[in-house]
Amino acid sequence: MEPLTLQAPYLVLVGDTEDPTYAKTGYGIAHWRPDRVAGQLRFDNANVDLGVPDMTVAQAAEAGVRSLVIGVAPVGGSIPDSWLGTIVSAAEAGMDIVSGLHTRLGEIAQIRNAAAVSGANIIDIRIPPSGLPVATGRKRSGKRLLTVGTDCAVGKKYSALAIHAAMRDAAINATFRATGQTGIMISGSGMPIDAVVGDFTSGAAEILSPDNDPDHWDVIEGQGSLFHPGYAAVSLGLLHGSQPDAVVICHDATRTEIAGWPDYAPPSIPDCIERNVSLARLTNPAVRCAGVCVNTSSLQSEERDEYLATIAAETELPCVDPVIDGCSTIVASLFQV
Amino acid sequence: MEPLTLQAPYLVLVGDTEDPTYAKTGYGIAHWRPDRVAGQLRFDNANVDLGVPDMTVAQAAEAGVRSLVIGVAPVGGSIPDSWLGTIVSAAEAGMDIVSGLHTRLGEIAQIRNAAAVSGANIIDIRIPPSGLPVATGRKRSGKRLLTVGTDCAVGKKYSALAIHAAMRDAAINATFRATGQTGIMISGSGMPIDAVVGDFTSGAAEILSPDNDPDHWDVIEGQGSLFHPGYAAVSLGLLHGSQPDAVVICHDATRTEIAGWPDYAPPSIPDCIERNVSLARLTNPAVRCAGVCVNTSSLQSEERDEYLATIAAETELPCVDPVIDGCSTIVASLFQV
Repeated sequence: MEPLTLQAPYLVLVGDTEDPTYAKTGYGIAHWRPDRVAGQLRFDNANVDLGVPDMTVAQAAEAGVRSLVIGVAPVGGSIPDSWLGTIVSAAEAGMDIVSGLHTRLGEIAQIRNAAAVSGANIIDIRIPPSGLPVATGRKRSGKRLLTVGTDCAVGKKYSALAIHAAMRDAAINATFRATGQTGIMISGSGMPIDAVVGDFTSGAAEILSPDNDPDHWDVIEGQGSLFHPGYAAVSLGLLHGSQPDAVVICHDATRTEIAGWPDYAPPSIPDCIERNVSLARLTNPAVRCAGVCVNTSSLQSEERDEYLATIAAETELPCVDPVIDGCSTIVASLFQV
Repeated sequence: MEPLTLQAPYLVLVGDTEDPTYAKTGYGIAHWRPDRVAGQLRFDNANVDLGVPDMTVAQAAEAGVRSLVIGVAPVGGSIPDSWLGTIVSAAEAGMDIVSGLHTRLGEIAQIRNAAAVSGANIIDIRIPPSGLPVATGRKRSGKRLLTVGTDCAVGKKYSALAIHAAMRDAAINATFRATGQTGIMISGSGMPIDAVVGDFTSGAAEILSPDNDPDHWDVIEGQGSLFHPGYAAVSLGLLHGSQPDAVVICHDATRTEIAGWPDYAPPSIPDCIERNVSLARLTNPAVRCAGVCVNTSSLQSEERDEYLATIAAETELPCVDPVIDGCSTIVASLFQV
């Protein structure tokens, strides 16, 4: 049993996307894993530039590209007709077609037929592998860190990637483990954990971070929040299956309500630490909180410093904005006795 | 959006089942909902008797039976060839075919074709309704009680049915809400909650117990345990979506390890109460624990009394074996100020 796996190098399809906010996945791949990206494919009227070489399908095939990754979200979530020829050409050239769109590309006959002829795979990264097991609860070798949130969309993926980067900078043997679509495209493998049937959520998390060297760290992208009225089940299953040695709390400094659920307030940072650590103890009694990552982008510089200092004093933990400060202090704290 | 719904009256197919332990579902239906059962269909060599009238398919059709319910688990989990003719006849007669077997009856051409001709439905109670929503977290009208467990297989379904029966005896307006296969067959509707994709677990629980009269009680069958390394995600999603006003703890007196997970111990009753109540507060701050149901079948009578008295003293809650004592004391405690 393996997580989803994508073949690099990628050609990232940008198409005619005009609004950069629809290209967050493409930017994320190019920013975090430039080594996996051979180029981008933009149409004449594109207004987005990922900062990687422009390539046609033919040039990409020549360069050994193995996957066409749909790295943008077209308006409406389905494939514009004008993109179809490009996708079919890539499939004909034997490239895997990787997509997280609501439109299932394998249901479009032209794409399906082209892939069948060339032997290319059509990979929907929203679909988990089949045959996932119930979690065993067996303690695995190696170390694990899981980012957890006070809410959705507070930077759990970004923080995990930044912590992984800081570990790499510190010559620590580490792997980023993706649990959502963008993370899976960035890292080239992972588990779309929120699409797994509830009975297998923890089992899927176990598959995602298997036994490893004793000093190896898996840095696992969190999902949802234990304090979210809709998504806490996934968060708990991921927490139990991940068996984290360390959790890192992620928060948005100006979030006053659970986004989209205005009757619910995010927890305090100490409450979020306490609940995550106490529930994580079921599968790893040695778990502890290693730090706090805050998105402070909506604060002024002065406010920012005070905000982070207050949380650091309150929790006695390193507290950073990962975009501004990086995560080296959090990583260092993992190795303090 | 509706839970699964089954049409009564039922003809319960027993077939040639010899071992009563394979007929637990059939016995459960006949015990808890005799009003839903018209009869049983047994082959000549059957060694199981549900205590309801024997009927052929023709007699059942004549009597207005609307569903053939496969109320036993054949050895191996698939349909013996000798059962096929009976199932096809029932489908031809227009009866819905209701099954929770691993074999999907709709994939057997003879059954599928017979049902297509007569307009009967083939209902797999392991498959949740499609299009389930993410939970809204909105507070619903009416009252709700959820049974929760120290482990799997500690009597959460039985306790919920017994509490519902005690409410009915006390002339309380109440509905049993099933979350597992046997419960769904017994009550004729429900939600196979552990088969729902994690993101929608709480949403499915919200659909299962919709707004109701202010003095109406939904008695919801719990699943898994917050202390189970494999199934806690489902338990938490069900807890949050149910928004219970009351939880009742279910336990097996002689359980010393999580069944099948020998590295894990069940929690103490107070720990189980504390964790369930503290997590349930997210969606219903008024939640409390209303009692404890213990399976004491493996204790001697003297031990039993002492065991229950000790828990009652420790928790200051009614503590019963629902099979022996019934649940009237727990129901009464719901209405004490």
